Order: sequence, then structure tokens, then C-alpha cells
Amino acid sequence: MSLLVVGSVALDSVETPFGKRDEMLGGSAVYFALSASHFAPVKIVGVVGDDFPEDAIALLRDRNVDLDGLETRSGGTFRWGGRYSDDMNERETLFTELNVFEEFRPVIPNEARSTDYVFLGNIMPSLQLNVLDQMADTRFVAMDTMNIWIDGAKQELLDVLGRVDALMINDSEAKQLSGRSNLVKAANAIQEMGCPTVVVKKGEHGCFLVCREECFAAPAFPLEKVLDPTGAGDTFAGGFMGHVARTDSSDPQTLREAVAYGTVMASFAVESFGVEGLLGLTETIIEERYNAFRQLVSF
Amino acid sequence: MSLLVVGSVALDSVETPFGKRDEMLGGSAVYFALSASHFAPVKIVGVVGDDFPEDAIALLRDRNVDLDGLETRSGGTFRWGGRYSDDMNERETLFTELNVFEEFRPVIPNEARSTDYVFLGNIMPSLQLNVLDQMADTRFVAMDTMNIWIDGAKQELLDVLGRVDALMINDSEAKQLSGRSNLVKAANAIQEMGCPTVVVKKGEHGCFLVCREECFAAPAFPLEKVLDPTGAGDTFAGGFMGHVARTDSSDPQTLREAVAYGTVMASFAVESFGVEGLLGLTETIIEERYNAFRQLVSF
Repeated sequence: MSLLVVGSVALDSVETPFGKRDEMLGGSAVYFALSASHFAPVKIVGVVGDDFPEDAIALLRDRNVDLDGLETRSGGTFRWGGRYSDDMNERETLFTELNVFEEFRPVIPNEARSTDYVFLGNIMPSLQLNVLDQMADTRFVAMDTMNIWIDGAKQELLDVLGRVDALMINDSEAKQLSGRSNLVKAANAIQEMGCPTVVVKKGEHGCFLVCREECFAAPAFPLEKVLDPTGAGDTFAGGFMGHVARTDSSDPQTLREAVAYGTVMASFAVESFGVEGLLGLTETIIEERYNAFRQLVSF
Repeated sequence: MSLLVVGSVALDSVETPFGKRDEMLGGSAVYFALSASHFAPVKIVGVVGDDFPEDAIALLRDRNVDLDGLETRSGGTFRWGGRYSDDMNERETLFTELNVFEEFRPVIPNEARSTDYVFLGNIMPSLQLNVLDQMADTRFVAMDTMNIWIDGAKQELLDVLGRVDALMINDSEAKQLSGRSNLVKAANAIQEMGCPTVVVKKGEHGCFLVCREECFAAPAFPLEKVLDPTGAGDTFAGGFMGHVARTDSSDPQTLREAVAYGTVMASFAVESFGVEGLLGLTETIIEERYNAFRQLVSF
């Protein structure tokens, strides 16, 4: 089955203790699509400026990503710059230039409105709602969000939450959204907001899934080399939703496997700068690491 | 097979956001013994003052802990007081009264010198060495350590490391000891110091085992209620070594199971104040949570 992602398409400038890169292809929809495209056909809905590089388009097409919903507007592409601390656990935003993304009003192409599997990247909750209004029956919709919407658009965020199947959220934001400092209670409180599945992402500490009555916990894949954590969360979401879409199921067992595939894909992403680590992957390479991950946690 | 633990026996005063308790039974050897005694017979080597409460002795005897190596000296028992932050992730030491523990020179009773499985609790490395010198052939020895010995007694610590089978260490201390900020590299560097098995404890984020070429990662057991994290590391060590001793094996599969039992025992400890959570446990209760933990991480 195919997948639709709505989110940012960006040019990222990143500094980590291991180097510095300018204007790399990035954005939530891009990381998601490059990850998910290893599992199922992906359509991007997003916006870029007329300065968006041709080779970035070529790279996405090369992964068979459907770009019919990628609008090009006169102006600059969304740009973001950030710097990571020495231990990679903190990052500072150096600049954010929204450019054409500021006026982004997602329009789902007609042929894409019946896509069964949807990921609502981290955009304003009112836009996420608007996307849901444009979709015909969906089978499984997951969403991302962040602190500024929890602070500034809580009611709209709760409206979206009540209409999706899964929320992917990082640990500090799960605590903020629920008002609970205990992660199990935080995840359960979010379920009570109307979202049956909650995936709490803890970065290098792995993640925690609650799915109705069930719990699943997974460590991160241990790596000797982490060059750039940018996009890890969206890459995780891509592996997760990619596996759900290709399996055409969202039963608890599939969701557990989906967390493992998300973890594996994120591990490839952070080993290199930008999206580099997601290029050149093959099914064999992915399955090999998936099996290593299963071995890592088995007892 | 039986187990020997050398470490502190203390009276702890603890404040957490959920309450305050004074002069509870505590200390590394106590948490270890109460945990491990569910798996194998345990002997404690330690020291207490003549003010050590009778009911604490009774409680340990009740768990069949062998106290022949527990010396009583004239003076006060080791006392420690600490306060946890609201999110339980930081703790402040309010006072440390070493009392008779200051002069502790472990003497292993003759009958205990041939114990096969040994845990060297967090005491001065020179004392840990001295314990090893008193032991006949051992099958598997694990040690704990902490930042003050890494800073102040590094060479002695390295001498102990070269003579034990396993180090249990928390993540920040693993980084400090190895000088590596990446945990996989830190664990491998510690192996190269002569210790084939390294268990890196990450508190609420679980733990990471390297054992020769193998890696195993486990999350913590998710809990809705954490009342007091004191002693979690030593309780983990007790479950770990207890399973190793009862299985009489230290092959990689046993060590993986040992991490899981350690995790399970630690989860019982932190649900209550002090050692309360370790009392009243039965094999059935432990196995039930062990199976729930296996289910938690399976995919």
C-alpha cells in the first residue's frame, strides 16, 4: 500500500563536533520519504522555493518518490541552521528562514486523497486538520508535533489527536503535553486524549510504544559513530509507517516490528550527515541490521 | 552455587518527591544480598556499628543471608542521607557519616574463601584487591566502582579490573573511566583494560552489556510509580549475579538472562522506599515480571 507524507522540505545547515555542512537536502517530509521509500511507494505534499536544487528533485525521483504534491512557489526554500553540542545531546537553532513554508497550505492532489497510510509531519495543527479533511477513508494515520504547538495551539492539537491512530512524540514533549513526569503515565494520558497508539521517542535511549493495552520498549541501535542526529525522528517515522503500509496492518505485532524498522532506519541516518546515510541502502542491508537488532535485544 | 558480596551495610535517610524515610536499612551489600538471595545462597562481608538494629539482622537472616562475615565494631553504623530531585534524575547527598565503615578492612571467613561467585561492591579499589587476594579459585567475579575511585585511585582500579570477569558501571562513569563519550566505544575501551564483560547501567534508560564480541541492550522495566531509586544498581547486580550463580554459567546467553533478571529485581526495588520492595517477593512474582519483560521487548 502507498503512503502520503505532509511536511517540510528544507535546506539544512548543520554543525556537529564532526564537521559542518551547508544547505543539505532536509526537512521532515524528505527524511520520512527517503526512509519509507524502502518499504512502500511514497507521495510528498510540501512546498519549495524556485531556488530548490534540481539534484535534490532528482534524488527524490530516484527513490520513486511521487512529487505531484510538491508545490514550487516563487521565493526561497525553507532553510534551517543548527549546531549540536559536543555530546550531541543538545542542539541550538542558529537560524530559521521559513520563506515559502510560511504560507504553506497543503493541497492533496486528487489522486492522492484515497491514500490509506498518512504521516502528518510536524506542521501547525490547523494544517494537519485541514489535510485530514481532504483525505478520503484512511487506514492508519500517524502524526508528529512539537513544543510550540503544545504551548500555542493546544486545542487544535487535541482535535488532530482525536482523529489520528498514532502520535509520535519525543519524551520531553510527551511529558509537556500530558502534564505527567512519568513516561508510562504520560503515554497513557495521551491515549486518553483519543489516540490509541503513542510512540515516545527517547533519542539515543530508544523508544517506548503503547498500543491500547500493550507496551513495547526498544533501545536505540548502538552505534560507534554518530555524525549528525538531524532527521532521526522523521526517519524513524518513515521506517515505522513504511513497514505498516507494506504489511497493510496495524495490529500490535506489526507495530512492534515497525518500531524496530524505525529504529534501524534512524540508525542509518545518524551515521552520516543529512540524508546521506539513507542513500545506497538495499533491502539486504536493512534486513541485516534488522536481524542484528533482534539479536541485540533477545534473551 | 553460592555468592559472596563485599560492600557497605548502612542506615539510609532518603527524601524523594513521594516522601521521606529516616535510618532505613541500606548499603550496597544489603541491596545486593536481598536481591540475590531469591536466586542463590548469599554471604555478606561487611561491617556495622554496635547501634545496628536487631530487626535489620533478623530481616537478613530471614532471607537466609549468611552473616558470618558481618563484623560488629564499637561505634556507629555507616549512615547516608540523600534527596532526589522532582524528576528523580538527580540526587544530592545531604550527609555521609562513615563511622565504622571508615576503618573497614574486609576479612573473608575461612569457609567463604572458596565461594565461586563474588561481587565486589563499591569500596576502595585497594580493598577490592585485598578481597581477591583472600579468595581461592573463583568462577566469576563482578565489581562495581564510582567516580571518586576513577579520579583518585585509577591505578588500583585498573589492577582490580584486570582481575575480574565483569564490571558494572553507570554510563557517566563508563565515559569518565574510558575517556570516550560514545558508550559503545567506552564499553569496548574498558574491555581492553582487561575486563571481558562490561554492563553499563543507564538507570531509567535501561542497560547495555558487552561480553567479548557480543552486545545486548535492554530498556528498564516501565513503571508507573517510582518511589525511591536508592539501591537500584546494587539490586540489579544482585539479580544479575544471582542468576549467574544459580545457573553456574557465564556464557553469553546466561549473561543476557542475567541482565533481564537484574532489570526485573531493580524494578521491584524502586517501586518502594529502601529495601521494602524486595521483601515479600516470591519466585512466582519474579518469574511473572521476567516473562512480562520478555514480552515487553519481543517483536
